[in-house]
Amino acid sequence: MNKDIEKAWALLKRGCDEILLEEELIDRLASGRSLKIKAGFDPTAPDLHLGHTVLINKMRQFQDMGHEVIFLIGDFTGMIGDPTGKSVTRPPLTREQVDRNAQTYQKQVFKILDPGKTRVVFNSTWMDKMSSTDMIKLAGQYTVARMLERDDFNKRFKSEQPIAIHEFLYPLVQGYDSVALESDVELGGTDQKFNLLMGRALQKNFGQKPQSVITMPLLEGLDGVQKMSKSLGNYIAIEDAPSEMYGKLMSISDDLMWRYFELLSFRENDELLCFKRDVDRGTNPRDIKIKLAEELVARFHSESALTNVSKGVGNVFKKGEMPQEINLVTLVAEQSEGIPIANLLKDAGLVASTTAARSLIKQGAVLLGGVEMLTMDFVAKKGTQHVYQVGKKKFARVSVE
Amino acid sequence: MNKDIEKAWALLKRGCDEILLEEELIDRLASGRSLKIKAGFDPTAPDLHLGHTVLINKMRQFQDMGHEVIFLIGDFTGMIGDPTGKSVTRPPLTREQVDRNAQTYQKQVFKILDPGKTRVVFNSTWMDKMSSTDMIKLAGQYTVARMLERDDFNKRFKSEQPIAIHEFLYPLVQGYDSVALESDVELGGTDQKFNLLMGRALQKNFGQKPQSVITMPLLEGLDGVQKMSKSLGNYIAIEDAPSEMYGKLMSISDDLMWRYFELLSFRENDELLCFKRDVDRGTNPRDIKIKLAEELVARFHSESALTNVSKGVGNVFKKGEMPQEINLVTLVAEQSEGIPIANLLKDAGLVASTTAARSLIKQGAVLLGGVEMLTMDFVAKKGTQHVYQVGKKKFARVSVE
Repeated sequence: MNKDIEKAWALLKRGCDEILLEEELIDRLASGRSLKIKAGFDPTAPDLHLGHTVLINKMRQFQDMGHEVIFLIGDFTGMIGDPTGKSVTRPPLTREQVDRNAQTYQKQVFKILDPGKTRVVFNSTWMDKMSSTDMIKLAGQYTVARMLERDDFNKRFKSEQPIAIHEFLYPLVQGYDSVALESDVELGGTDQKFNLLMGRALQKNFGQKPQSVITMPLLEGLDGVQKMSKSLGNYIAIEDAPSEMYGKLMSISDDLMWRYFELLSFRENDELLCFKRDVDRGTNPRDIKIKLAEELVARFHSESALTNVSKGVGNVFKKGEMPQEINLVTLVAEQSEGIPIANLLKDAGLVASTTAARSLIKQGAVLLGGVEMLTMDFVAKKGTQHVYQVGKKKFARVSVE
Repeated sequence: MNKDIEKAWALLKRGCDEILLEEELIDRLASGRSLKIKAGFDPTAPDLHLGHTVLINKMRQFQDMGHEVIFLIGDFTGMIGDPTGKSVTRPPLTREQVDRNAQTYQKQVFKILDPGKTRVVFNSTWMDKMSSTDMIKLAGQYTVARMLERDDFNKRFKSEQPIAIHEFLYPLVQGYDSVALESDVELGGTDQKFNLLMGRALQKNFGQKPQSVITMPLLEGLDGVQKMSKSLGNYIAIEDAPSEMYGKLMSISDDLMWRYFELLSFRENDELLCFKRDVDRGTNPRDIKIKLAEELVARFHSESALTNVSKGVGNVFKKGEMPQEINLVTLVAEQSEGIPIANLLKDAGLVASTTAARSLIKQGAVLLGGVEMLTMDFVAKKGTQHVYQVGKKKFARVSVE
């Protein structure tokens, strides 16, 4: 490997969960040609959070190296919905909804990707033209037993949860997208590995060189434990206000900070090594965290937004107001599930009683990792460590054992 | 039930393996309207034998009662072939081949069905127009687990034989044909039961009244044991020469004769009861068998062909030359599989040695149930009874115990 490729390779590998097959991808990079880098997105959920950007950042790295990035919107299946009629969560989308969602997507991802170098495609372009005959031929490329090896299918089959047959066709459609695009590389989350490998299998059957597959890990949320997701409330949305984003980032643990640097920052590997060395030598990790928060706020907003944040405009976690040190409280859970939020707040000394805790949660005055606590039913699990906040001034980092 | 329907019902029930659901079909018959009677045929094997006619005879009965008979040629899947590329037995058919096969079919089935009252349809008519979206929606109507309940799928899945996913789509296509045709009744062999019920399920999903399903048994071949099939050599082809057909029919056992009357004859139930009573009272079954042979030769050829046969033209089993009595020989098998043909011929006294037996088989001089024995490897199974013939004069009915 020559030095340029070696450097590119080190950057591309950063944070990846798996690369299949490494040698193939290195050969492709060494060929010097512009590679087609595909990643597919569901047209139903265009409100992106930092978890989604892990993948988009990797696309950006390829783009910076001169490769062609293809942002694929999987509208074909989204416009079919669930033909079993059993799912209310997947009603079919209309063309208008898809287009609107696509625009929302682009508005967000072009904060990371270069619009001039990104090809946005819709798989309905080729799938709508496919006849039932072609669909049957496609279905003939794969076996029932191998499809049932996919984790979620396997679990459902074994527990006798129904799997409708069309669900077997969706991974084939995703795989066929790679054939239609003649993609060189496909990126996806670790949970997408099966579908990405399907692209390899189908390309091989269609006489193409099988794509290289890169899976990216699912980013942990603000709690540092569970994956970032809207429903868990532990997320930072791309469209969060500058001060909110800044505050949330400043609230994460030091361990999580390094993880976020690896997966979310565009700083080079060498720089990150320097930061780590600095902390080892006594630099306050908080000062390094500020660099992360600044980089991300600047990316999704602007340098001027950052200045406002730095001046401390309208945020709970205003830079400078946030306590330098947050007390660490260790609580022992009496129940195996963990500690209910009201008890935790009381035991950590943040409220006088569980009744007060509930009333404050209702008022929206309780925050977990900088995010408003929306439910009384939250239970802090064993082994977790979060920053809890009540009102503007009371903070505690609570570790549950 | 009024008397007309009662009589129709008795005839329709004759020989059926199963009727699902009986009450529904009786209601339909009682409605007085002309019902749509569907039966599907594979476009690959147009050379029909009497086994195939069991179904067509049942169609004819419906036709005689004024119902609309739909002869469906399943060309859509035949023209796809096997997309896995693994099967050499199912290469895709061209439009020309399908049309040629369809003509051959019609030439044969119109010896039974009234061409003026038969609608011949090709499922490519509606399936070719179906988009991949519609195919996915169709696949969403059924679950993987229920599809795996089909006998053959189940066996293959359990024994880890691959099942390509498109194989799951074919029963759905067959079921959808019933939706497209809005059929009232579908006929098929017992081995088709799963697919026929699929039609019911899909019609229900598409808001139609589910079709009644009638399964017909698989006809036993000349040996009276195994199902009639070309590959077993125990068949009577629709296109067999009159004398050959006549001779083969005269060679069957008395038990098999009653079975053939039930499934192949158009004589009314009352007549068959009379024949049975006659035999009970001493009539030679051979005289009744002649009536069966005459009816079938007349159906597939003509009355004049029958006259020629009766005059004894060019056949081993010429009427009148065939021995009135064939000796019954009972042999005890020493091996559990049965008795190899060469040993059987020797032990039955038809040949002097097993060497002579083999040589005669090679020359084509040995017949089993009127059909040339093509292999030395034939083993007469325990519990079977066949007429064996060597040359033109030597006959024995051999029972293996």
